[in-house]
Amino acid sequence: MSREELTATQDRIAPYIHRTPVLTSSRLNHLSGAQLYLKCENFQRTGSFKMRGASNAVASLGPDEQAKGVVAHSSGNFAQAVALAARMNGVDAHIVMPDNAPAVKREATIGYGATVYTSGPRALDREEMADAVQEKTGAVMLHPSNQWEVILGQGTSAMELMEDVDDLDYVMTPVGGGGLIAGTAMAVTYFAPQAKVIGAEPAAADDAFRSLRSGRIEMNETADTIADGLRTHLGDVNFPIIQRHVDSIICVEELEIIHALRLVWETMKIIIEPSCALPLAAVLKDKERFKGKRVGLILTGGNVDMDTLWPQIRSLEQELGVND
Amino acid sequence: MSREELTATQDRIAPYIHRTPVLTSSRLNHLSGAQLYLKCENFQRTGSFKMRGASNAVASLGPDEQAKGVVAHSSGNFAQAVALAARMNGVDAHIVMPDNAPAVKREATIGYGATVYTSGPRALDREEMADAVQEKTGAVMLHPSNQWEVILGQGTSAMELMEDVDDLDYVMTPVGGGGLIAGTAMAVTYFAPQAKVIGAEPAAADDAFRSLRSGRIEMNETADTIADGLRTHLGDVNFPIIQRHVDSIICVEELEIIHALRLVWETMKIIIEPSCALPLAAVLKDKERFKGKRVGLILTGGNVDMDTLWPQIRSLEQELGVND
Repeated sequence: MSREELTATQDRIAPYIHRTPVLTSSRLNHLSGAQLYLKCENFQRTGSFKMRGASNAVASLGPDEQAKGVVAHSSGNFAQAVALAARMNGVDAHIVMPDNAPAVKREATIGYGATVYTSGPRALDREEMADAVQEKTGAVMLHPSNQWEVILGQGTSAMELMEDVDDLDYVMTPVGGGGLIAGTAMAVTYFAPQAKVIGAEPAAADDAFRSLRSGRIEMNETADTIADGLRTHLGDVNFPIIQRHVDSIICVEELEIIHALRLVWETMKIIIEPSCALPLAAVLKDKERFKGKRVGLILTGGNVDMDTLWPQIRSLEQELGVND
Repeated sequence: MSREELTATQDRIAPYIHRTPVLTSSRLNHLSGAQLYLKCENFQRTGSFKMRGASNAVASLGPDEQAKGVVAHSSGNFAQAVALAARMNGVDAHIVMPDNAPAVKREATIGYGATVYTSGPRALDREEMADAVQEKTGAVMLHPSNQWEVILGQGTSAMELMEDVDDLDYVMTPVGGGGLIAGTAMAVTYFAPQAKVIGAEPAAADDAFRSLRSGRIEMNETADTIADGLRTHLGDVNFPIIQRHVDSIICVEELEIIHALRLVWETMKIIIEPSCALPLAAVLKDKERFKGKRVGLILTGGNVDMDTLWPQIRSLEQELGVND
């Protein structure tokens, strides 16, 4: 990866994405003791940062590849992003979604013009079906986090953040499959080398934390976290970048995630997904480290199904001991 | 009221308020068939447009009056707004809140430095206690909607909207006590006279609709609406302005309010109060009227207590017949 590749990516995807705002909150600054800059990918097209990587992957294909279409498997945000990016490029999209994917995300993906295939709920089910679709159609397989063009695309969110905010001390993202933090780490290395990149991960799915310690890609035995976007593991393309350019990973508990989620909803009046709340939860957990620092946080997305999420929050709070 | 008074108000309150953004949504435009411009007072200081009127009322007082302090009664948004506006002006605030006001709003009001008094739940309880506090302290009573300085302050939201968006055909607000729509109507009359001002009101609390028809201020016998900010009636200061400068009022049903609320949360990823959703609900109800038009909507506030609101939404949907 090079500075020029990142800049070329930014130019390439400009027609397909929104430039998202950076918000601040005096209340959150007061509570954290830090200067926080929140990059709002929840306002991105299709409701998440995934549109950046997906549109770069689709737009980077040659005419012959584009003519064959693209295939991907996803239960949510990447599905919608690939569907819209493909439509905007005049490319056919074949998306495999598990049968337990939220109906609203399924409908949105179909609404963006993709052909949707329904698989069983396990990761293996999806992968097998995606392979079969790929073989039958000859379409190009896209990976949500472990593919070069996707990682480059995800890095453009931090690039915009650094254009808007000078002298950041830290840039923080949640860590799921590793595409966002890898792209962010490269962008920060080139465009704000004084800043450190820190990931935030659920303690209940701390594969990346363990991977950095052991030096190899670790899996999650279980992944019982409300941050459903962060249950995946790192990949062989993004892991070396993360090893080299990410300062550290902070693990946070479920109640800390929910507390941070509520804080953003209630004080900033914006809707973010549980996965989004991790970096703020990490800042609030480790206040000493961030005291007086300028901290950029990537808010990754805002696609929540309130009908299932709200009861889930309440039941976790009751189980884990938050009083009304 | 004059153009100069509005401009002077805008200058007077500038130090106390945020200039809020105007957002657009291609999805909402597609669904409505209109060009919608949403003025986001949910991002205003204290979480609602009430900060505009409150800060104008407090800042307009002479030094002798300011030295006596201010008193107001409110269950929520006006309480917080008066408390903060008073503190920013170095003025004591005495706020009477009913004992059924949400704890979070009570705490916020205390957090802004006001002395909070707790009354019984009825309007009469609050008024009596506020009168007693006023008599004891000599503080100046502020009214949330039926006071000249407050009406002027509320009009500044539409002024900003018209500065940011040209050639509006309509400007729409919810209608509760009448301060916002009266201020908006005056601002539109002076700064975008081609535009019509339309109010949106719950069918379950349609006092303003009936008042315009009968020519006198009507009351609500009952006010069983989820839009809890809109249960109040018009006043003798704002009613003549509304009669003269408001084009019409559209009444919407509870399920239409909830549908519009969900649409804004889910597609725009911003949190608005139920009262906020009324203008969008009205546009979606009367699509023919707004087809192809440029419509400004004032989103009034974002102070929701999700723990009580979400169960309320679900139970109304079940009772009134929306399936999952």
